[in-house]
Amino acid sequence: MHARDMISAHPDVKGSVSEPLIGCIEACYDCAQTCISCADACMAEQSVAELRQCIRLDLDCADICAMTGALASRRSGANPEILRGAIALCAVACRLCADECEKHAAHHEHCRICAEECRACEQACVTAVRTVH
Amino acid sequence: MHARDMISAHPDVKGSVSEPLIGCIEACYDCAQTCISCADACMAEQSVAELRQCIRLDLDCADICAMTGALASRRSGANPEILRGAIALCAVACRLCADECEKHAAHHEHCRICAEECRACEQACVTAVRTVH
Amino acid sequence: MHARDMISAHPDVKGSVSEPLIGCIEACYDCAQTCISCADACMAEQSVAELRQCIRLDLDCADICAMTGALASRRSGANPEILRGAIALCAVACRLCADECEKHAAHHEHCRICAEECRACEQACVTAVRTVH
Amino acid sequence: MHARDMISAHPDVKGSVSEPLIGCIEACYDCAQTCISCADACMAEQSVAELRQCIRLDLDCADICAMTGALASRRSGANPEILRGAIALCAVACRLCADECEKHAAHHEHCRICAEECRACEQACVTAVRTVH
Repeated sequence: MHARDMISAHPDVKGSVSEPLIGCIEACYDCAQTCISCADACMAEQSVAELRQCIRLDLDCADICAMTGALASRRSGANPEILRGAIALCAVACRLCADECEKHAAHHEHCRICAEECRACEQACVTAVRTVH
Repeated sequence: MHARDMISAHPDVKGSVSEPLIGCIEACYDCAQTCISCADACMAEQSVAELRQCIRLDLDCADICAMTGALASRRSGANPEILRGAIALCAVACRLCADECEKHAAHHEHCRICAEECRACEQACVTAVRTVH
Repeated sequence: MHARDMISAHPDVKGSVSEPLIGCIEACYDCAQTCISCADACMAEQSVAELRQCIRLDLDCADICAMTGALASRRSGANPEILRGAIALCAVACRLCADECEKHAAHHEHCRICAEECRACEQACVTAVRTVH
Repeated sequence: MHARDMISAHPDVKGSVSEPLIGCIEACYDCAQTCISCADACMAEQSVAELRQCIRLDLDCADICAMTGALASRRSGANPEILRGAIALCAVACRLCADECEKHAAHHEHCRICAEECRACEQACVTAVRTVH
């Protein structure tokens, strides 16, 4: 992704980028795609009826990751209370989605990968949220 | 919108819809469109350089409203902690966006309408968040 | 929705709004919500395994409607080739989703309503696309 | 990104992933983030009033890339006509956005990077669209 280069080139940033925020943006876009894929793969499983909760959490997590990635990409003006709130919400959504996906990780490789990516995105959010003032 | 009829027809809901949640969904979709329009109208103003903060809050608010409207529309499975968090975040985003738009309401009709719609969506979110268990 | 009032207040529009475009914006936001709801309700049905194609078309249609509603809301600058392409794509996505939902309309009220709303959005798009130059 | 691993793990795909489609998904998510960043950086420039058309094309392109990335990630059921149409639209949106960003590339590094990423995403879409049947 080009998040670091793009934000470095922002006239208000002037090269002094927040590495934790870059990591959060990249993780959010990655996790949004992963959760959409996992919901879609769960839907194709024979046991789809048992994966409803997983699909629900995947779709909610995907929407929150996409929103958070967009918000964290903006550096014009300032909206710190909202950005902190979005990243904090994203961390919890990722944690809950990882918890659910892990229950199915032994049977479904897509759930195993999705749980892993959700944990990574949770961690990136937890690290980034402390840096937003 | 068809949110009430659609959610009434959900097999897990069976007609017993939460009116505050329906109001929240409708307000979120309305406010998402309004904030996108306001950001775009601000961009076309001669005084665009003074409206940067307004455009930033509009775009953030639009993204959060769209995400919240999608989450609140789902009734399969359950994700109450995240839904509560999303609606609560949306209420604050709408309040801050309304505060900013009101500063420009005397000069820009689009900011006046957007502030009004953001207040309505904030109120719908505050009412709905209490009902999500 | 406030689409008409917001776009009327745009400095480049000055009150001369395109009614077909307003109708298209409103239908797109409505249809986005309806399709998210229908996918979610299909997921909760006992016969979910037979509704996979319906869920797929619902989710694709919801994403396209949301994108088209956002694009059609912007009046700053000009992007007519892309706006026309988006509205035309949306019309086809709505038609195909309506065709699929109609197959389940007799058994699932949410599919009946969704098919109806998709037809309305298709029509709004077909009417609007001719007016974008 | 985890697009390749996730789609490889989809029960209907069974390891036989389409490399051009994976490339398209990755490029779409990357380009969505880049275009949101570029619109936001343009907004912060002193010459924002001259960058309105660039911001418009950036925001439209970001919405289309995000939608296309989501659609291309789904493998349950089939929606080839719509997926082809979305990828084709995305290719044109990226081309037009690149054309506009290039005009400002000499003065704004964010426009230079964005033009480059839009060209890469256009190419990924052109390559992928031929493979969707």
